Amino acid sequence: MQESATTIAIGPDDPAPRLLEKAVVGAGAQLGELADADALIWTGTPREFPATLPSSVRWVQLPAAGIEDFFAADVFAAHPGVEFTSAAGAFSHSVAEHALMLLLAGVRYLPEQLRATSWQQREFFPHVGSLRGKTVTIVGAGGIGRALIPMLTPLGAHVIAVNRSGRPVTGDGVPAGLETLPADQLGRVWSRTDHVVVAAPATAQTRHLIGADELARLKPSSWVINVARGSLIDTDALVEALATGVIGGAGLDVTEPEPLPDGHPLWTLPNAIITPHDSNPPQLRLAAFADHVGANVARYVAGVPLLAVVEPDRGY
Amino acid sequence: MQESATTIAIGPDDPAPRLLEKAVVGAGAQLGELADADALIWTGTPREFPATLPSSVRWVQLPAAGIEDFFAADVFAAHPGVEFTSAAGAFSHSVAEHALMLLLAGVRYLPEQLRATSWQQREFFPHVGSLRGKTVTIVGAGGIGRALIPMLTPLGAHVIAVNRSGRPVTGDGVPAGLETLPADQLGRVWSRTDHVVVAAPATAQTRHLIGADELARLKPSSWVINVARGSLIDTDALVEALATGVIGGAGLDVTEPEPLPDGHPLWTLPNAIITPHDSNPPQLRLAAFADHVGANVARYVAGVPLLAVVEPDRGY
Repeated sequence: MQESATTIAIGPDDPAPRLLEKAVVGAGAQLGELADADALIWTGTPREFPATLPSSVRWVQLPAAGIEDFFAADVFAAHPGVEFTSAAGAFSHSVAEHALMLLLAGVRYLPEQLRATSWQQREFFPHVGSLRGKTVTIVGAGGIGRALIPMLTPLGAHVIAVNRSGRPVTGDGVPAGLETLPADQLGRVWSRTDHVVVAAPATAQTRHLIGADELARLKPSSWVINVARGSLIDTDALVEALATGVIGGAGLDVTEPEPLPDGHPLWTLPNAIITPHDSNPPQLRLAAFADHVGANVARYVAGVPLLAVVEPDRGY
Repeated sequence: MQESATTIAIGPDDPAPRLLEKAVVGAGAQLGELADADALIWTGTPREFPATLPSSVRWVQLPAAGIEDFFAADVFAAHPGVEFTSAAGAFSHSVAEHALMLLLAGVRYLPEQLRATSWQQREFFPHVGSLRGKTVTIVGAGGIGRALIPMLTPLGAHVIAVNRSGRPVTGDGVPAGLETLPADQLGRVWSRTDHVVVAAPATAQTRHLIGADELARLKPSSWVINVARGSLIDTDALVEALATGVIGGAGLDVTEPEPLPDGHPLWTLPNAIITPHDSNPPQLRLAAFADHVGANVARYVAGVPLLAVVEPDRGY
């Protein structure tokens, strides 16, 4: 039995020894040196990746969700017989949870309440809202958007997902028949939208996706949350909308520019919540990576298809 | 057909005409005067309640979740042939959502981040936590606790419910086999608990349920949330625990005393979030009551059992 156990190497180093080792062993494999390994959990950069791998290695788990740099370094081309998996999906949870936190804090008037040093129940009452019965439009229904949907629906929110294709979003905890619109019909959703969560990739097409026109079509109670990239929102238009009450507020984990410079109006607008791109801090990232490793090692041991398999021919 | 439609009266006045009328009509009934009504949606106090009701009235919906005052005013005894329903369960959602907001804001280090006026990513990184994989103990698994459970589980939190009997908590969205402990074994949960949400009724037994001993057994990262009544927590012990880092923080919608006086240390402790008992503000209460009315009118019209039926013989 001992000889037949799956052997997993971790390299070039182990940034979270207890977490990763526990994940590997907990999934039914044993740890070993690369020379004897069936699989490699890679924790390094593309540049450091071994030029050759022992022929015993059939699978490599990469540490990143986006693997453009591994393509650029020709890692896949150099190892044609090896199955690679990325960490796609592994890091979405924490960012989605952060988006939910920002949205709830905004809707329930937390910024103003946190500043208070006296009991202002009557003053605050009218401003405390709820997500129940509200429509939340999630722009970008990739990993983060898909992770956010099951967090929003138990709150009684109606979710509209917007993605490139308009193909219905599916996934664990995503309600069947979720309304999904293609990005080119984004203009149709604003009048029905109470709150917006931006979770789309930064591309030339998505630059300033939310600008003065879009903000003007939202409600004075609407919150705009951005956990994707600062460039998706026109910052000047947002500042203007926040200062003049065109929308209710904004919760931003990402800004343009970033870091947001001292003295920027977003720091002091009472209806802006800024977190410094910390929705997925290193310690949570490592824990999430270890979870992903554990899930994939268990699948490898069981001989079932792995999660987040890289398809080099298709470029992702 | 017209004559056979269910007729509902609303009285003594209608605090939210559009909401309640829409709920009644949307549920398939028609509005009418009390003299012709099959049922009464009561919006007033126990004292104002009619001494006699037309014999056509078979059902009365009361506006409150707690109906002690209607018992005290002998409303049920005076109308033995009438079925009464309370609004029990109707108002839990908003309070549960508020508890979730306070917990997420605490765990993700929002208070400190909201005070910042410069980009402090490195400083904040280690403090941003997640509910994923954490154990949240909900003390009091009545309406609010039951409403909170389905909001927490999609976040990957493990929930332990504590109620009087220890009988397993069930309900919409409550995972089957949820771990439920009787209140007399509360002492056993602290070592396994990451965060606590207090949602139990205020009784002699629950006074200062969370005191210095309980706080000492939590973790330096633990958040304590109270959306029930201030008396369930020993405020002086809590202030001490917050000031000395015995726990991570506290999110309190209720305090003892209440209102919390100006100058109280809870107003300025950096790891205390105070909201002035506004987790269920009037406008959300009315909307929730209208939803409850709509659900019960639809059941009445369909001839199926109503929600939150009062059982005068059993005293609730």
